[in-house]
Amino acid sequence: MTDSETISITGQRLQALREKMAERGLSALVVPRADQYLGEYLPPHHERLRWLSGFTGSSGMLLVLPDRAAIFVDGRYTVQVRQQVDSGWIEIHSLTEQPPMDWLSRQAEVSGRVGYDPRMHSFRWRQSSNAVLENAGMELVELEENLVDLCWRDRPRPAPRQAFLLGAEYSGKDSTAKRAEIGKQIVERGADAAYLFAADSCNWLLNIRGADVPNLPIILGSAILHGNGEMLFFTDPDKIPDGFTPHVGEGVSVRPEIELPQAFRQLRGKTVLSDPDTANAWSQLALQQAGVEVLAGADPVILPKACKNRVEVQGMRNAHVRDGAAVVKFLAWLDAEVLAGRLPDEASAAGHLGELRAAQVHFQEPSFDTISAAAANAAMCHYNHLNGTPARLEQNNVYLVDSGGQYFDGTTDITRTVAIGEAGEEVRERFTLVLKGMIALARAHFPAGTTGTQLDVLARQFLWGRGLDYNHGTGHGVGSFLSVHEGPQRIATTPTDVALQPGMVVSDEPGYYKDDCYGIRCENLVLVTEVGSMQDNGKQLLGFETLTMAPFDRRLLLRELLTVDEQRWLDGYHSQVLERVGSLLEGADLSWLKQAIRPL
Amino acid sequence: MTDSETISITGQRLQALREKMAERGLSALVVPRADQYLGEYLPPHHERLRWLSGFTGSSGMLLVLPDRAAIFVDGRYTVQVRQQVDSGWIEIHSLTEQPPMDWLSRQAEVSGRVGYDPRMHSFRWRQSSNAVLENAGMELVELEENLVDLCWRDRPRPAPRQAFLLGAEYSGKDSTAKRAEIGKQIVERGADAAYLFAADSCNWLLNIRGADVPNLPIILGSAILHGNGEMLFFTDPDKIPDGFTPHVGEGVSVRPEIELPQAFRQLRGKTVLSDPDTANAWSQLALQQAGVEVLAGADPVILPKACKNRVEVQGMRNAHVRDGAAVVKFLAWLDAEVLAGRLPDEASAAGHLGELRAAQVHFQEPSFDTISAAAANAAMCHYNHLNGTPARLEQNNVYLVDSGGQYFDGTTDITRTVAIGEAGEEVRERFTLVLKGMIALARAHFPAGTTGTQLDVLARQFLWGRGLDYNHGTGHGVGSFLSVHEGPQRIATTPTDVALQPGMVVSDEPGYYKDDCYGIRCENLVLVTEVGSMQDNGKQLLGFETLTMAPFDRRLLLRELLTVDEQRWLDGYHSQVLERVGSLLEGADLSWLKQAIRPL
Repeated sequence: MTDSETISITGQRLQALREKMAERGLSALVVPRADQYLGEYLPPHHERLRWLSGFTGSSGMLLVLPDRAAIFVDGRYTVQVRQQVDSGWIEIHSLTEQPPMDWLSRQAEVSGRVGYDPRMHSFRWRQSSNAVLENAGMELVELEENLVDLCWRDRPRPAPRQAFLLGAEYSGKDSTAKRAEIGKQIVERGADAAYLFAADSCNWLLNIRGADVPNLPIILGSAILHGNGEMLFFTDPDKIPDGFTPHVGEGVSVRPEIELPQAFRQLRGKTVLSDPDTANAWSQLALQQAGVEVLAGADPVILPKACKNRVEVQGMRNAHVRDGAAVVKFLAWLDAEVLAGRLPDEASAAGHLGELRAAQVHFQEPSFDTISAAAANAAMCHYNHLNGTPARLEQNNVYLVDSGGQYFDGTTDITRTVAIGEAGEEVRERFTLVLKGMIALARAHFPAGTTGTQLDVLARQFLWGRGLDYNHGTGHGVGSFLSVHEGPQRIATTPTDVALQPGMVVSDEPGYYKDDCYGIRCENLVLVTEVGSMQDNGKQLLGFETLTMAPFDRRLLLRELLTVDEQRWLDGYHSQVLERVGSLLEGADLSWLKQAIRPL
Repeated sequence: MTDSETISITGQRLQALREKMAERGLSALVVPRADQYLGEYLPPHHERLRWLSGFTGSSGMLLVLPDRAAIFVDGRYTVQVRQQVDSGWIEIHSLTEQPPMDWLSRQAEVSGRVGYDPRMHSFRWRQSSNAVLENAGMELVELEENLVDLCWRDRPRPAPRQAFLLGAEYSGKDSTAKRAEIGKQIVERGADAAYLFAADSCNWLLNIRGADVPNLPIILGSAILHGNGEMLFFTDPDKIPDGFTPHVGEGVSVRPEIELPQAFRQLRGKTVLSDPDTANAWSQLALQQAGVEVLAGADPVILPKACKNRVEVQGMRNAHVRDGAAVVKFLAWLDAEVLAGRLPDEASAAGHLGELRAAQVHFQEPSFDTISAAAANAAMCHYNHLNGTPARLEQNNVYLVDSGGQYFDGTTDITRTVAIGEAGEEVRERFTLVLKGMIALARAHFPAGTTGTQLDVLARQFLWGRGLDYNHGTGHGVGSFLSVHEGPQRIATTPTDVALQPGMVVSDEPGYYKDDCYGIRCENLVLVTEVGSMQDNGKQLLGFETLTMAPFDRRLLLRELLTVDEQRWLDGYHSQVLERVGSLLEGADLSWLKQAIRPL
């Protein structure tokens, strides 16, 4: 313990929190990086973990004990957490090697009551944590007030911004039709209604968008959807814009979130579908206490939302052409800068790309924080140049840029790896293996019913052949002017029972990372499409249409590693890029594109 | 109902059975194709379904009601069941479209008691069937006596044959060491003992083999294995040969099967590991009734048995060389016959192959019934030429032969598809796609932890690319002088959580089947081996070593569809066949092999 005069900010905040804990007889407190919506993105006034610990990563958990505190982060943040957290006050642990509740259950000085805010955790987390703690004679205690909020004096005020209405030219289907269809499915699943915890499900159902959090254009809230399509949307009513009622049609009622418990009580005796994996513990406990029969099951909006309709698909294509124009201009600029001996740093490169994207029609905001990583920095999969001094791009190495935009008509996510000067033989070999994998997945045809787990090897096979791999999934779902990370489909080595279906958008992003040297990733978004039917049983034959439109760096290719078919695919893709994006370019940018895509 | 004078054999048998049912107040009786060991192979005196219905297929279930009877078979037997079963007495249903218990639960005349012999069903089957029937107000009733046995006057007598001892030169590890190791694992899993229901697990643990059933060289029985390695083996003691005790070492006691209930009672209060998915319902109920704490979990022998040791691996290699010599002689003979205008029929071809195999050193018996299928017959995946008039091979089409042997040192399973005369362009295209898939899987490298589900697409990708597929798994495990179908690993589109591990043997057998035209399958057995380590984390890098040694028919290849790497793989494989098998051949056979494998 340090003297109170020299006590750090972290120490002061922890001590204030410990007083609140003591008043409530708690021997431990759980502080996750989360708010009551459990989303990936948090508004500033919900950044409780950051306020308390200084840690700015997107995932982590702090356990506060009377005399100790410990933060748990995953492998992405091992370096960052040491730079940001005051280790005099907070021990640092690995989330995967030392799960927080396991650790807590072994702390002999903790006896009894472990406080947590049930709004900030999923019901599933509560169940599994309870099981671990009960074995150690401890118990989770639900707190009505968030103890961090009670201590947080200079907490930013929420800045409510109005939602906006997404026209049929972007959504492709009106809210009434969506609600009727999904209501029918709720009834077919044996429920009277569903509690839709996920805010993006609610925004999609109502064809609205908003600006409550960065990167994900939604207003926060949750909803009860009845079998007949009637919907109660719980949010800040001040955010609802003029024209909302005619836009969403009959049967939608907006209520302040404080009325949720009362609405649950009105469902007494009814069967309500709810997803215990994603909904917060508070809502599930409140439903149970209200006498509702909870039917555990997946959010019924997730699958229809993932399968884009014709209008959404065309919007995604259009957004990707404009996004491709921004990326091409960026790559042309970068080449010119490097050629002129002016190596930009990671921040100025990301900044320039951001400006080019912002100039595109229908652009709203980035779909995530740009990863702009020079050389060895790119070997850290979730590197963020804003967490330290941005590095200057390194001559005779590669530069990796992973970025995307939110447009009214679609969401983009693209990674390109670019040669800065002359890349070495090893880098080029591995780039080629990565690209071969990306192409193999992009070219795959497969019968309806196939999952991403089954296809994942196509992207990894060439790396595996040389004892190489990448330590992340191959593809995640992408929303339509919604989250850049969206389920239920994914392409990964881990099992999934969700089949790929027409209209789903998924990333195709193998990579290769060599610690302290360089990082490579090639990422396109692809659309699942029906390409024909199986000859013997007429089942759908599916494939992928590539949405992303920007060239790959041919200077990084070892041509002798590419088959004729792969070269043909790449040349065909590049021709398409010129055809679609070329009309948005002129002058030096167009000339650059033409030379960048000349046949291999 | 027919007049009793003209009543068929099926009718007479059903009536006798219905009298026994009536005496016991049963309104339905379940007759599966199974015995108390629940294995794939049955001795003749356990072929109850065949005796009652005439159906000889390897899987099926008969439900006998007071006035109706219905047999349920899967898609393999749709044609055969109509030929074999008296449809005047027995309705025919599809096992998959109309699950028997679902069907039964909808029969209004069935009220109450559904009799079954708990020895003939897995515990899992009992649980799921009970759930279905209880919803319909029916209940499963355990029968102490098998009602079919009570009616079966001319039942064959079992012909007990002695077990034989498998020396260390074949098993590679003595029984004492195996039992100690697995006993340790049982304790680590929190149990005092395991009930080993699977007879092949018991034979493997004791390094014995036998001849109780066709194709699978074991003696039937089950065992209790204690944590300290002591084992009670329940079987017919007359089958135990001289020298057994010194062979198996200390701590093995042989008991008649009738003593099993008593042995269970001696385990009262102990925790016993048992596998509810594979063990019969009778044993699980008996354990519960004896006051044993049953810990449900996988048979602890299955995984160690699947991972062959160095001696077993070398035995498998050796057996495959001799097996390859038999297959090469067969293929040479077949070519000569066809060339001489003497097209054999399916039975004589299978017979000749059987003779050639039987002449090999260490050969014991076929590892399964040979599939010898001309032209369109091969489109039926489980065709058996013995179920009708064997067809003559068809000029200008293909012939498919899937066969294997049990040798003291290993088990083989090989499929070759051969041109008879000039095969058409379409057949050759599809043969090439199938072979490309087989090669892609054989060449795959993958990190430890990878499952067969992840790799399956490698074998299907080229077929899928043209909207084609095959309706079976890509690979099954194979035992070491044990079952030709052995778990826990498999390669298939369906999910599995079992990773491929060094020492596992698995088939690599994509195919393509065109109804009423032809069938193609290319099958090699491959061994999972460590081929290196992952460059970044040092984890094992695995691959496959091909065990099967016989050429593929190059006349069926469309060379332009093969990549240079695939051609190289095939030429390399063929050189290896010549190198290993050639020394067992001479004269015309050797000349035939040399021309058959000349480089593409």
